[in-house]
Amino acid sequence: MKVDGKDMRPIWFDSVSQTVKVIDQRMLPHKLVVAELRTVDNVIDAIKRMFVRGAPLIGVTGAFGVYNAIVELCQKQKRSRQHKNASDACSKKISAAVSDKDRAYDKACDDYLKRECQRLKDARPTAVNLAWGVNRVLEVALRYEQYDKKLMAVLQEACQIVEEEAENCRLIGEHGLRLIEEISRRKEGKPVNILTHCNAGWLATVEYGTATAPMYTAFDRGVDIHVWVDETRPLNQGARLTAWELGRHGIKHTVITDNAGGHLMQHGMVDIVIVGTDRTTRTGDVANKIGTYLKALAANDNSVPFYVALPSSTFDWSLKDGVKDIPIEERDPDEIRHVQGIDAQGNLISVLVPPQQSGAANHAFDVTPSRLVTGFITERGICEASEESILSLFPEHAGNIG
Amino acid sequence: MKVDGKDMRPIWFDSVSQTVKVIDQRMLPHKLVVAELRTVDNVIDAIKRMFVRGAPLIGVTGAFGVYNAIVELCQKQKRSRQHKNASDACSKKISAAVSDKDRAYDKACDDYLKRECQRLKDARPTAVNLAWGVNRVLEVALRYEQYDKKLMAVLQEACQIVEEEAENCRLIGEHGLRLIEEISRRKEGKPVNILTHCNAGWLATVEYGTATAPMYTAFDRGVDIHVWVDETRPLNQGARLTAWELGRHGIKHTVITDNAGGHLMQHGMVDIVIVGTDRTTRTGDVANKIGTYLKALAANDNSVPFYVALPSSTFDWSLKDGVKDIPIEERDPDEIRHVQGIDAQGNLISVLVPPQQSGAANHAFDVTPSRLVTGFITERGICEASEESILSLFPEHAGNIG
Repeated sequence: MKVDGKDMRPIWFDSVSQTVKVIDQRMLPHKLVVAELRTVDNVIDAIKRMFVRGAPLIGVTGAFGVYNAIVELCQKQKRSRQHKNASDACSKKISAAVSDKDRAYDKACDDYLKRECQRLKDARPTAVNLAWGVNRVLEVALRYEQYDKKLMAVLQEACQIVEEEAENCRLIGEHGLRLIEEISRRKEGKPVNILTHCNAGWLATVEYGTATAPMYTAFDRGVDIHVWVDETRPLNQGARLTAWELGRHGIKHTVITDNAGGHLMQHGMVDIVIVGTDRTTRTGDVANKIGTYLKALAANDNSVPFYVALPSSTFDWSLKDGVKDIPIEERDPDEIRHVQGIDAQGNLISVLVPPQQSGAANHAFDVTPSRLVTGFITERGICEASEESILSLFPEHAGNIG
Repeated sequence: MKVDGKDMRPIWFDSVSQTVKVIDQRMLPHKLVVAELRTVDNVIDAIKRMFVRGAPLIGVTGAFGVYNAIVELCQKQKRSRQHKNASDACSKKISAAVSDKDRAYDKACDDYLKRECQRLKDARPTAVNLAWGVNRVLEVALRYEQYDKKLMAVLQEACQIVEEEAENCRLIGEHGLRLIEEISRRKEGKPVNILTHCNAGWLATVEYGTATAPMYTAFDRGVDIHVWVDETRPLNQGARLTAWELGRHGIKHTVITDNAGGHLMQHGMVDIVIVGTDRTTRTGDVANKIGTYLKALAANDNSVPFYVALPSSTFDWSLKDGVKDIPIEERDPDEIRHVQGIDAQGNLISVLVPPQQSGAANHAFDVTPSRLVTGFITERGICEASEESILSLFPEHAGNIG
C-alpha cells in the first residue's frame, strides 16, 4: 500500500542485503522505523516483541524465519569448515557428493532445522498462521539436500506465501465489498459506518489487510464509508496502526475507546462490524484480539451484522471448540500498566497509569463463539459461521480433523 | 476512609478557612492534591474538569456550590453597599427590617440564586444526583430571607447530605455483603472474584463507595475477595482510582483492560459484577460509565450475576426508558487521544497515542437495559431491576412520574 505516495509492505526480502526487512510497528504512528531480521533469534524477537503482529503477517515472518535458520546453518557450517572441526555434525554438508556419512550429517542438520522451526512456532501461541507458515516452508526445506538448493527453494516458498497472502487479501476485499455496497444502497448513499477492532489492516498482512480489505476496496470504488476504530487496549493497535493506515489512505475514521461500541450500536451508529482473527476453528469459533467477544455480543444484541475476514491460512482445521481448545497468550502485565505515545516535545515515551503497586493481567485474545458471528469473508467468498458452510467453501478440509 | 492511616474524604467543609475542599482526583494515584472551591465557578470547573467525579460526589459538590453562590451574593452585596450603588438589586438585602422594597430585592436575589443553581446543574448532564443535590439545597435556601440564616441553613443542609450519603453507602455495604458471603460459602472460602468498572468507590461518594461498599465490608469482615479492576478508558478511573483505593485498604486486586472481562467470565474467573450508576430509571435502566453495557452483556451471556449499587439519590423517578431518555455527555476527544501517567522520572505528563490527524469521539456513558441487570443494592436493601421491585423498596415514589 502507499505511504506518502511510496509503495510499502510491512515485510519484504531485500535483495541487496539478502535479508528480511520489516517495519518496526511498535514505533507507529509516530515513527516509521525499518528493522532487519538476520537470524532466527531476530525473527523470534520481532514476533514476541511485536515489531510484527497480525496473524497473516506473523505467518509470513515465520516463513522467512526458516530461511534465516538455513542461512545460519550455512554460516555455522562454514565456520566449522574453517576450524576443521570434524566433530561438528554439519561440517561436511555443502559437499556435492552425498556419501553415507553425509546422509547422517543431513539428518543432524534437518533435526537442527526442525528444532529452530519449533522455536519459531513457539514465539506466539494463539495465531495458527505462524505454525502454518513455518511448517509449509520447512516441508519444502526438507525436500532438498544441498544448501544452495534448500536456500533457494525456501526463499522462493516464503516469497510465494507473501504473494498468495496478498492475493487472498485482495480477494477478501472483493467479496467483502458486496456487503458494504448493499448497505450503501439501502442507506441511499449515506456513509456506511463500519466498526473494527484492533488492526487487521495491511500492516497485519502484506497488502489490503483482512478486515480492512473490504474498506479499502469500497473506498477505492467510490463508496462513502466511515470507520469507527476501537483503540484496542492494551497495545492500542487500533489507535496507532488502523487509524494511521486509514488516514494515510484518506479514509474517514474516528478513534473510540473499546468501551464505546455498544453505545454506538444501541443508537444505530454502526452498520456493520468487520474484524480479523488469529485462529478460527472449523466450526466457526473465532480467536481474535481481546475484546472482540464483547463487540460480537453488542452486535448480536442490536442486530448489527458481525463479520470476520480471514485468509484460509487462519483456519485451524483440527479444532472444533474455540473456547476450550485455542490457547490464549498471556503477555507482560506492563503492557497494560504503561502506555506509549509522544510527549509535548514529540519524544516517544511510556507513562505509568495505575499505582506502582497494582498488578495487572494481560490476556491477549478472547474467543467469540460461532453463534455470534454473522459470517466469514474469505478469499473464496462469504460463508456462514458453521462447519457445514465453511467446508462448502473449503471442501478439501472436510476429512482433515486432527 | 483511611489514606496512609489518616482519615480522608474526597470532599469536606474546612471550618477554619470556611471553604469547601476537595481532592483533585485528576492527579491520583500519583499525587494527592487538595483544591479549594471558593466560588460557583470553582465548583463548576471542578465538576466539568473532573477534580470530583462519581454521581454521589458530584451531587454533594453541587450542594456545596449553592453555599458558594450565597457567599458570593453576600460579597457582591457588601461591595455594593460600600459603593453605595443603589441600582444593585441586592444592595439592601442584609437589613433586618423587611420592607416592601426589600421583598423586591429578595426576589431579585433568589432569581440570581436560581440562575446560579441552573449553571451548577448544567455542569454535567448525565448524573441525576447533581440536580438532586442542588435542588434540595436550593429549596432550603429559598425558605430564608436573611443572608446569615440562609447561609447557615444551606451549609447545614449540604453537610446533612454528606452524612446521609455516607450512611447510605455504609448500608449498601451491609446489604451487598450478603451476596458476597453467599458466594464465599458456595466456594467454600476460596476467594470471591468481583469485577468492577470505573470508580464507584469512596472517591466517587463520601465514604465506602457504592459498588465498592460491599467489597470493603466483606474484606473488613474477613471474607476472602479479589477484585478485577477494569482500567476504564478514556480517563482510567479504574486503573488510577479504584486500584489506588483498594490497594490503600489492602484489598487484593488486578488491573485489566476493559476488553478482558468477557474472556474472564467465559472461563469462570468472575463470580459477580458490581458497578455504580450515574442515573437509573424507575424501570431499572442504568446509565453508567461507557462500557458498562458490554460487561452486562458478557455477564448475561455467562450467567454471572450483574449488580448495580446505588443510593436512592441516583434514581431518576421521572424516567422510564433509559436508552431513549437519559442524556449522554460527549466530552473532549483529547481525553481519548492523550493518556496521563508518570514518566520514568516520576513527572505527571500526557502522551498522544493516535496519529496527530486522527479524530476521536468521546461518549462518556452508556445505558444498560434493565433486562441485563440482576439486581440493585440500595440503602434500603436489594431489589430486582423492575419498576415493581424498585417501588416496593421506595413506595413513596410510586406516584411520582414526571
